[in-house]
Amino acid sequence: MPARRIIIVGAVAAGTAAAAEARRTSPDAEIILIDQGPDISYSACEMPIYVAGEIASDERLVRFTPEAFSERFRVDVRTLTRVLAIEVESRHIAVEDERTGDKERLWFDALILATGVRAHVPDALKTASHHVHVLRRLEDARALRARLERDKQGHAVVAGAGYVGLDGVEGLTGSGWRVTLLASGGRLLRGGLDAEMSQHVVRWLTSRGVQVREERAIGLDVSPDGRIRAVRTDAGERIGCDLVLAATGTRPNSELARSAGLKVGPSGGLLVNESLQTSGAAIWACGDVVAYTEMLTGKAHPVPLALNAFRSGRVAGKNAARGGVGRPATMQRVIHAAGVSVADLEIGHTGLTLEGALRAGLEAVAVDIRHRSASSNSPNKPLYVRLVGERGTRRLLGAQLIGEDGAAQRTNTVTALLRSGASVDDAYAMDYLYTPKLAPAHDALFVAARQLQKRLEASR
Amino acid sequence: MPARRIIIVGAVAAGTAAAAEARRTSPDAEIILIDQGPDISYSACEMPIYVAGEIASDERLVRFTPEAFSERFRVDVRTLTRVLAIEVESRHIAVEDERTGDKERLWFDALILATGVRAHVPDALKTASHHVHVLRRLEDARALRARLERDKQGHAVVAGAGYVGLDGVEGLTGSGWRVTLLASGGRLLRGGLDAEMSQHVVRWLTSRGVQVREERAIGLDVSPDGRIRAVRTDAGERIGCDLVLAATGTRPNSELARSAGLKVGPSGGLLVNESLQTSGAAIWACGDVVAYTEMLTGKAHPVPLALNAFRSGRVAGKNAARGGVGRPATMQRVIHAAGVSVADLEIGHTGLTLEGALRAGLEAVAVDIRHRSASSNSPNKPLYVRLVGERGTRRLLGAQLIGEDGAAQRTNTVTALLRSGASVDDAYAMDYLYTPKLAPAHDALFVAARQLQKRLEASR
Repeated sequence: MPARRIIIVGAVAAGTAAAAEARRTSPDAEIILIDQGPDISYSACEMPIYVAGEIASDERLVRFTPEAFSERFRVDVRTLTRVLAIEVESRHIAVEDERTGDKERLWFDALILATGVRAHVPDALKTASHHVHVLRRLEDARALRARLERDKQGHAVVAGAGYVGLDGVEGLTGSGWRVTLLASGGRLLRGGLDAEMSQHVVRWLTSRGVQVREERAIGLDVSPDGRIRAVRTDAGERIGCDLVLAATGTRPNSELARSAGLKVGPSGGLLVNESLQTSGAAIWACGDVVAYTEMLTGKAHPVPLALNAFRSGRVAGKNAARGGVGRPATMQRVIHAAGVSVADLEIGHTGLTLEGALRAGLEAVAVDIRHRSASSNSPNKPLYVRLVGERGTRRLLGAQLIGEDGAAQRTNTVTALLRSGASVDDAYAMDYLYTPKLAPAHDALFVAARQLQKRLEASR
Repeated sequence: MPARRIIIVGAVAAGTAAAAEARRTSPDAEIILIDQGPDISYSACEMPIYVAGEIASDERLVRFTPEAFSERFRVDVRTLTRVLAIEVESRHIAVEDERTGDKERLWFDALILATGVRAHVPDALKTASHHVHVLRRLEDARALRARLERDKQGHAVVAGAGYVGLDGVEGLTGSGWRVTLLASGGRLLRGGLDAEMSQHVVRWLTSRGVQVREERAIGLDVSPDGRIRAVRTDAGERIGCDLVLAATGTRPNSELARSAGLKVGPSGGLLVNESLQTSGAAIWACGDVVAYTEMLTGKAHPVPLALNAFRSGRVAGKNAARGGVGRPATMQRVIHAAGVSVADLEIGHTGLTLEGALRAGLEAVAVDIRHRSASSNSPNKPLYVRLVGERGTRRLLGAQLIGEDGAAQRTNTVTALLRSGASVDDAYAMDYLYTPKLAPAHDALFVAARQLQKRLEASR
């Protein structure tokens, strides 16, 4: 009898975690790890720091080369290999080696889809110009860095103000480029920050010389030699520039799975049960392509975060490899909590925004405070906090924190409260540390909780 | 009918919070606020920073002068006034004005005891020498700062390595003095740090030029003119020095209450119900003198922290003033969570130590990790974490964190988990932020939770 064969498609955070866990679970399985690109196991979140030149070499972003991973975990690693089709019933995938053009049909006992997301570039920004960049894969980061090393100065337009957009601002300004950020409607990190909180970041960026414009890119002017000349916006403006970063969102790479008949959610994420099994019996999924169940709403949608990739990779790897032995590993429900830093500014958010909560049909209210990172007698930085809670239940729903010191770590504290279903009264009763140089006697979260209590009492 | 009279004894954090809340609750009550010292409403936790000269004036530690507080809240503030006796049944207290020697017997409708703790100095360190300092009240901080302004250099022995001892090290080294810290048994923050974690702080202090000795002070050599010459230790050593800070613990100021028949716990804290009512019907208590109910063990003992003082003050103030109208405010159970900073080092702990958990009869285990504050590709600092959990229930019991970046704020996250009765699996499932420059992909708490899971599985 041949060894059980596990095929994993996608070899960044989730896929490599799945492969490693599959190997730990099953010493004998044959494991094939496939990726479309040349690299595996790299730190996508550190790409902007690399682009800015603050990390010397792209090698520092790579945890395992294909060779090292293959040796360490006894895995057949196949890079530059594209999956052409998935056959759910007969348990096969068709692949193509992009170097040779060779095609092959591989059977599997278990398949793990860790295909992640791809950069979504609207048609208006699609061009042959190599001066339009995206920042999704390590190759993208290499290309952008090479450009910035060649041209030490210039003007870049970053189209889109989500994570990738803010990462791009960080990378480009860190390299000494002038940056214009196109934030449609003046909104940054939509889904993570409400409009009012977004404005704090806009003000901060503006004070640091980043021009933030509320327009949307609707086209490009490209010279005959392929150089970018300008970005055209929906306000009828032409913004002259030397480079464009299209940070216009991502889409789950779920088309093949969908074509194969696997169930996909409204945002394109693969639907899974708590064992991360897809609607195909021998097929699991992990990483950014999965629609995770969000704790506060119970709804399933992609929450593309490194820690979810790692944890889900472990769960899928174990379940795919255990062959029905023992109890399946399960993936917990998630809270959408994320952070980003732009130079000295920390931005953290967790749970639902006010906008998101209202959209989900919850009777939500929010309070905003301006506080400080430490005691007023010690060096301290302003800290802006929005806390969102629910009328009636008094349940905490989310928080947004912005400041130059301690915003990110305080976000984790709120996440812990959210995960436990805490009320605003629990947030008030918390034993926050008071260490004058590190946290004021009344921590920002304590003060915000108190304000939210008052708001809920007033609006009863 | 005369207005309802509320007397509050003790006017630092808890007493002033109680007075302010009593006034908010009852616009008509007569409120008398008594303190033995000359100052009220000051920030005791910032005294070491003031002593080090980093806060210019003691005025910056005072939120309200007696006059300002009196005017703002319409409270009769009586400083330098000592309480001689409490009469529970007849609802009177006897007081003495220390300036005039005048005695008076005051009736009350409600009494709030916010008498706090006092510095406990063992007989061996008691002397008439004004070169033996304590650091409890604002007057103590003024005296120590005056000495350090007079003598810019010298050698100080800090006897005792609890919070006050470490605060003293911070204040003295900040002033340019050489410091020897006497940490009996080599233990720092006993009750907050286990022995192994304590050693990290000892090493750090030593590397910064603080001499840490495992001895206990058992006597003093004082010259005929009252100058300190040396501290004698239980190892038979004489440590020559110019100044001694007796940081040898505190005791609740509960003697008068006990004499009056009020119930007191084994550590001397006043026993209260969840409305903070003592065993005397018309007498409430708040602040450091109270024995709070600890969440994890259900046991009552003093947890002298500023936030407890503030919150309990509000509860006691409201309940004393409401005169039976409405529902009583309640004080939540507390987690013992505290932090201290010494120069760049942050020390945080929350919940139970391993030692404390075992002493409480719990089947506790601990894991220690050395991690870092941020991604290895970004500037980062070492972070030492001990996580304590319970066999069987898998319940999280406590954490200790030490490092130069992010130890304090991460402590809050664990506190939120502890308050919700979280298991180690909940700590692993947490959605920790990953922001390369602020937190690694696998946060220290995530890694520690994973290690604790393994330890609990191994020790099943």
